[in-house]
Amino acid sequence: MSNITSPTLLVDKQKTMANIRRMNAKAEACNLVFKPHFKTHQSVEIGNWFRNEGVDKITVSSVKMAQYFAHNGWTDITIAFPCNVLQADEMNTLAGSIKLSILISDIQTANILKDTFTNEIQVYIEIDTGSDRTGFKTDDTAAIKKVLKPISKSSSLRFKGFYSHPGHSYAAQSREQIKAVHHDAVQKMRQLNDYFKTDFPDLLCCMGDTPCSSAGEDWHGIDEMSPGNFVFYDVMQTHIGSCGWDDIAVALACPVVSKYPQRQEIVVHGGAVHLSKESITQDSVHHLGKVVRFNDDGRWGNPEENSYVKSISQEHGIIRCSASFYKNVQVGDVIGILPVHSCLTADVMQGYCTTGKLEPIDHLKGSFNNF
Amino acid sequence: MSNITSPTLLVDKQKTMANIRRMNAKAEACNLVFKPHFKTHQSVEIGNWFRNEGVDKITVSSVKMAQYFAHNGWTDITIAFPCNVLQADEMNTLAGSIKLSILISDIQTANILKDTFTNEIQVYIEIDTGSDRTGFKTDDTAAIKKVLKPISKSSSLRFKGFYSHPGHSYAAQSREQIKAVHHDAVQKMRQLNDYFKTDFPDLLCCMGDTPCSSAGEDWHGIDEMSPGNFVFYDVMQTHIGSCGWDDIAVALACPVVSKYPQRQEIVVHGGAVHLSKESITQDSVHHLGKVVRFNDDGRWGNPEENSYVKSISQEHGIIRCSASFYKNVQVGDVIGILPVHSCLTADVMQGYCTTGKLEPIDHLKGSFNNF
Repeated sequence: MSNITSPTLLVDKQKTMANIRRMNAKAEACNLVFKPHFKTHQSVEIGNWFRNEGVDKITVSSVKMAQYFAHNGWTDITIAFPCNVLQADEMNTLAGSIKLSILISDIQTANILKDTFTNEIQVYIEIDTGSDRTGFKTDDTAAIKKVLKPISKSSSLRFKGFYSHPGHSYAAQSREQIKAVHHDAVQKMRQLNDYFKTDFPDLLCCMGDTPCSSAGEDWHGIDEMSPGNFVFYDVMQTHIGSCGWDDIAVALACPVVSKYPQRQEIVVHGGAVHLSKESITQDSVHHLGKVVRFNDDGRWGNPEENSYVKSISQEHGIIRCSASFYKNVQVGDVIGILPVHSCLTADVMQGYCTTGKLEPIDHLKGSFNNF
Repeated sequence: MSNITSPTLLVDKQKTMANIRRMNAKAEACNLVFKPHFKTHQSVEIGNWFRNEGVDKITVSSVKMAQYFAHNGWTDITIAFPCNVLQADEMNTLAGSIKLSILISDIQTANILKDTFTNEIQVYIEIDTGSDRTGFKTDDTAAIKKVLKPISKSSSLRFKGFYSHPGHSYAAQSREQIKAVHHDAVQKMRQLNDYFKTDFPDLLCCMGDTPCSSAGEDWHGIDEMSPGNFVFYDVMQTHIGSCGWDDIAVALACPVVSKYPQRQEIVVHGGAVHLSKESITQDSVHHLGKVVRFNDDGRWGNPEENSYVKSISQEHGIIRCSASFYKNVQVGDVIGILPVHSCLTADVMQGYCTTGKLEPIDHLKGSFNNF
């Protein structure tokens, strides 16, 4: 730990591998193809940790991310974001070298794309199972039929099935509530499957938010699972019941720069440009992260009680401390923050160090100029 | 604009230059040394725009940022962040080649640093004029005297004066309220100056948040001004009265990927990894950005009425639209978002394009591997 002098995102490989193996085993037990979402880690090296567990199909959230992972040997990639017609040329090029799947979420997009590509591209129609974000409502079969027409007529587009991200599971307040969201979403996807399977007997249904993938039990009618956040989990996921504190696999290491006894607060180097600005209210306390102490090898235990990130500015983190934590922490110490939302923390940090040997690990954004 | 196919941060050089010139002229008129904060743009190229206006002293918020700008020819840099003792070696090296100023905000730090450096380093003592973030309270002259002792005894540290960032100005709700915060902060700094000037006749007082620098009138007793955000401004600054809509110099260009007539919403590629997650409540509407249309040259006008970023996820921006805006926008269009907090948007985007010719402009984070 003495090599850490500025904000550093530590990843605990042991916890990460446990998260990967648990979800992989669950997918297998539920007879689901595991297509993990790589938007959370955005890392070739961490991608290899999945590959070593037998994973060969992945999900990403942008064309750029697809290019990054294709460039690093991944050959079956789904871009789980409403297809951006302005990037058609890039997708077409990509589809020339890998098996590429995209999401169509809008009739205008389908009409534009039907004669656009020269290479074959797999298409999921995006389904809104209740998150009110993107895709067609499950009961709007008329609209789905309409969007299927240009896809079926296209010489390059191949209809593959339905994709849904039930992101409203993030609003759950307990594991039981997640299960209820999951149950409802699975039922809707199954009805859709039943409705269309006569015409499209091979269609696949893919689902995959982390809460439902972690807590959901009944997967009957679903074929593929594509969660992302589970690789690291975070404070939000412990709060809603997806995981326990022990499962959180990343912590932002932050130098302590000053102490304020009157406020029982410390200030660390670690702000919005390191942590992002995601916040949560737990037990009536609004905060931006929980606090941990590191062992010498960079590993950490459970969060300090009654201590949390009270506010942040661009580079500052202001931490409200319990009396005992305040007493034991000194200027020049390095303490850890468990992020509220690990995807965004990883994105702003653009890279990792492993605990233990402190080996640097890549991130798409950090390798900006090499790629 | 037809070259933009994915989220791109556009900077209007004309507006940026107007912002730089206005603040530079104000500093001169108020007899202040202008030491602009470069944490907002983090760009060597935009730094040159300042240099061409005669600026030769700058402020930054981290050692890394100081290294970046020193590497690019800046020779007088203040790191306006509570000195992180773990980076003493890096600061010492830097102080071997440029005039480096740091902030000391804690007695422990002063005691650690007094015998640490071999090169001369200028020291501001950080003062808390009301933001309750970092530094010594102005009326705590006993603590300030105590911290002055190790600094005065040190062979490398040179006491330069007092630095304050009255960041509570960001909570103002009007230009009049900003002026009140400014008046109070200036008065406190002046009293401090009066108290210590017998012993330290050459001490300097530096202040510099964007709201106070934009709206504050009386600067008597202050010697230096170091605002940062004003270079681009943003929605928050229009809201509290620091600037007008015309002054906002950056907009995130986002492709439209789907439309939802029932909700009168569009979805764009442009989420938390492009915009950051800063939000604001204006006229009872909570939002994450205002919406603009682009001219062919990439410039934009005032925000669309009754249209705003309702929510974002990692890559998605969900935009609630007025009826007329909804009607006129199509899948495949590129629309603009004026950020709530431009510093964070620039930080996550890691680079810019100028309007007009779409020339790329550097950002510290985007040049990660080159530096």
